[in-house]
Amino acid sequence: MEREGKGGFTLVARDGEARRGRLLTRHGAVDTPAFMPVGSKGAVKAMAPDELWTLGYRLILANAYHLNQRPGEQLVRELGGLHRFMGWRGALLTDSGGYQTLSLAKLTSIGENGVLLRSHIDGKQVELTPEGVAAMQRALGVDIMMTLDECAPYPASAEQVLRSVELTTRWAERSLEVERGCGQAMFAIVQGGVYPHLRKLSARQLTALPFEGFAVGGLAVGEPKAQMLDTAALAGELLPQDRPRYLMGVGTPQDLLAAIALGYDLFDCVLPTRNARNGSAFTCRGAISVKRARYARDPMPLDEACSCRPCRSFSRAYLRHLYLSGEILAARALTEHNLFFYGRLMSQARAAIASGAYQAFWRAWLGRMGESAGERE
Amino acid sequence: MEREGKGGFTLVARDGEARRGRLLTRHGAVDTPAFMPVGSKGAVKAMAPDELWTLGYRLILANAYHLNQRPGEQLVRELGGLHRFMGWRGALLTDSGGYQTLSLAKLTSIGENGVLLRSHIDGKQVELTPEGVAAMQRALGVDIMMTLDECAPYPASAEQVLRSVELTTRWAERSLEVERGCGQAMFAIVQGGVYPHLRKLSARQLTALPFEGFAVGGLAVGEPKAQMLDTAALAGELLPQDRPRYLMGVGTPQDLLAAIALGYDLFDCVLPTRNARNGSAFTCRGAISVKRARYARDPMPLDEACSCRPCRSFSRAYLRHLYLSGEILAARALTEHNLFFYGRLMSQARAAIASGAYQAFWRAWLGRMGESAGERE
Repeated sequence: MEREGKGGFTLVARDGEARRGRLLTRHGAVDTPAFMPVGSKGAVKAMAPDELWTLGYRLILANAYHLNQRPGEQLVRELGGLHRFMGWRGALLTDSGGYQTLSLAKLTSIGENGVLLRSHIDGKQVELTPEGVAAMQRALGVDIMMTLDECAPYPASAEQVLRSVELTTRWAERSLEVERGCGQAMFAIVQGGVYPHLRKLSARQLTALPFEGFAVGGLAVGEPKAQMLDTAALAGELLPQDRPRYLMGVGTPQDLLAAIALGYDLFDCVLPTRNARNGSAFTCRGAISVKRARYARDPMPLDEACSCRPCRSFSRAYLRHLYLSGEILAARALTEHNLFFYGRLMSQARAAIASGAYQAFWRAWLGRMGESAGERE
Repeated sequence: MEREGKGGFTLVARDGEARRGRLLTRHGAVDTPAFMPVGSKGAVKAMAPDELWTLGYRLILANAYHLNQRPGEQLVRELGGLHRFMGWRGALLTDSGGYQTLSLAKLTSIGENGVLLRSHIDGKQVELTPEGVAAMQRALGVDIMMTLDECAPYPASAEQVLRSVELTTRWAERSLEVERGCGQAMFAIVQGGVYPHLRKLSARQLTALPFEGFAVGGLAVGEPKAQMLDTAALAGELLPQDRPRYLMGVGTPQDLLAAIALGYDLFDCVLPTRNARNGSAFTCRGAISVKRARYARDPMPLDEACSCRPCRSFSRAYLRHLYLSGEILAARALTEHNLFFYGRLMSQARAAIASGAYQAFWRAWLGRMGESAGERE
C-alpha cells in the first residue's frame, strides 16, 4: 500500500491505526513515525548537527519566537536561512511561539489580534500575531511552519477553552493568507483542552481548511496521563488520514508508543535532551540516573543493549564522575545516548508497523521498560 | 639523524636548538614538539576522546590531585586504569598536584614530608607526599608521572625559592624510590623562580638523578613574559639533550613557538580550552572574541584559513548566537577549533624543524598572528 497524500505525505503502510509514512520536504524525506529533537534556539542542546544526522534524525524542531528574540529572523534570512545558519542539512519545523503564551503566561495578554508578551531576554513588549509568526517562519526558511495558536492552561473552564478554540481557528484562517516560500508547508494546531466536544469542534473547524498537516496541541501541560492519551485518541480520530499528524510536546517512550498506536506520525519533546543534562538516561529497562551512588564503581555502559557511541566508550562510573565534576562531556554523552535511544525506538516502531507486528513490538517494549517512564532501579 | 635516548625518547631532527622527537609510550608514540590538551578531571572540557584523537592528539594531561579527590585513584584502578576509564587510546601524563600548592595556596602548609591542603571538594584535609602522589599515578596507570614539587609563588625572595628548590630535589629523590607499573616514566620538575643561579642549582641537582624526562615548572605564574622566556631559555640549556623537556603551563601560540626554538618538546596549557568557553578563538591573524557585536552578521568562519569541522559548518554569526544563548555547542565548537589550531601549529612546527626551516616558519607565523597573543581586531 502506498497512498500519495497532500503536502508531500505518503502513507507507506498501516497496522491497526498505526501508520508508516514518508514526508517529503525540500530538505529531504522524513520517515514517520518520527521524533523531532528540540532545538528551540537553533541548536539541539549539547549536540552538533552532524551528530544528529548520524543518529538518523532528518527533521528537527526550532522555535520561531525564540529565534525572533535572538538573533532575529531577518539576520538568519540574510545568512541564508535557518538550515544554513545551523549547518543542518535535514528538514526543519518551527513551533510558532503559541506555547510560549502558556509557559510565559504571567507576562501575556491575549486579544483578537494576537498575543502580547514581554521578551524573556530584554523585557521589551513583543506582539505575536498569526501573520507575524508566519512571516518569521517564512524568513527562517523552514520546511514546516506552525500556525499561532492559543494553548489554554490546565485546568481551564469549558468557556475559556471554547474561546481559545475559536480564536485558534480564526488565527489559523488568517495564517493561510500569508505568503510562503517555495515548498513551505503549514500545519494547524487542534486545541480544546480535555473537553471532547471542544476537541471535536476544533478539529472540524481546522480540518476544513487546506493545511498540509495537523497538530494536536495543549496536551502534556499538566493533565493526568490517562486524560492526555484519551484526548489524543479522540483528536487523532478526527484528523484526515492523508496528512501527517503531530502530537506536540509528547513525550516519554511509553507515550510515544501509545501515540503511534493511535495513528500519530510526528512528535517532539525536551525529555531526552533535558533529562540527559540532569544525569538521567533512558534504557530499555527503564530510566537510570547516573547521579546515584550505586553506579560509582559500575563498569557497565548506560544500557547493555545499546550500541551508541557513549555506550561503546564510557562506563556508568565514568559518566557519574563526569556528571558530579560538572564536565560538559556528561551532558554530551547522555544526550547522545538518549537521542540514540529515541531514534532507535522510532526506527524499530516503523519496521514493526511495516511488517504488521506493531502490537507485539509495543507489548515487548513495555514488558522490558515498564509501563511508566519513572526510574525502575 | 636519529638518536635513541633514554626512556623511549628519540631525537629525529634538530634545527638550531629546536628538536623534532618521538616519545614512545605503552600507549603509542608521541611526535614532539607536542601540545597536551588539559583534562585535569579525566576529561578535556567540552571534548570527547575520539575527537581529540581525530584532531591528531596522542598525549593528554590529567591531574593526580583532582582525580584523587574525585573519583579516587583506587576506583579508577578497579575500572581498568585511567585510559580505559576515559575511553582514551592515546598516552596520558599526570601532573602531580604540586601546582595546586600554589593555586590553592591559602589552604596549604608545606613541610618536609609533603603538602597539607584542604580538599577543594569537601574541605577535608589532604596530605600530598612525594610517595603518595607517585602511588596515585601508579594506580591511575598513566604513561608519564610527574614528581611532587613545590612551586614557589611569584614574586618570592631568593631565600624562599632556594628552600623550594632544595625541598623539590629531596622530594624528587624520594619519588624515585616508589615502585612503578610497567613502562611508567617519571619526570622531575625544575624550580628556581626567576633566579638564574637557583634554576641552575635545581637543574644540576635533578638531572643528576635518573629521570626519563625533565619539566620546567614555576613559570607562567605571573612573572613578566620576557622573564618567563629568559628563564625558560636558561633552564632549557641545562637539561640533557637525550631526554624530553616539558615546559609546564605554557602557553600562547607565540610562547609555544618561542619555547620550541629553545629546545622544548612538551607543553600544556588551559588557554585553548578555557578561552574557547569564554568565546575566544585563535586564528592565524590573532584571537577573536565571538561575543563582539561586529560579528553579529558575519558569515565567515572563525578563521578563513582553517579546515576544522566547526569552520567548515558554522559562521561567526551563528557561533556568536550560540555563545549569547548559552548553548553548549558554542563551547564545543570553539574548543574544537582552538585545539585544531594548536594541533596544526605543532604539526607544522615539527615539519619545519625536520626540513631545517623552523626560523622562517616561526617568522612567518608571527608576521600573520602578531607578536602577542592579544586580540588584534
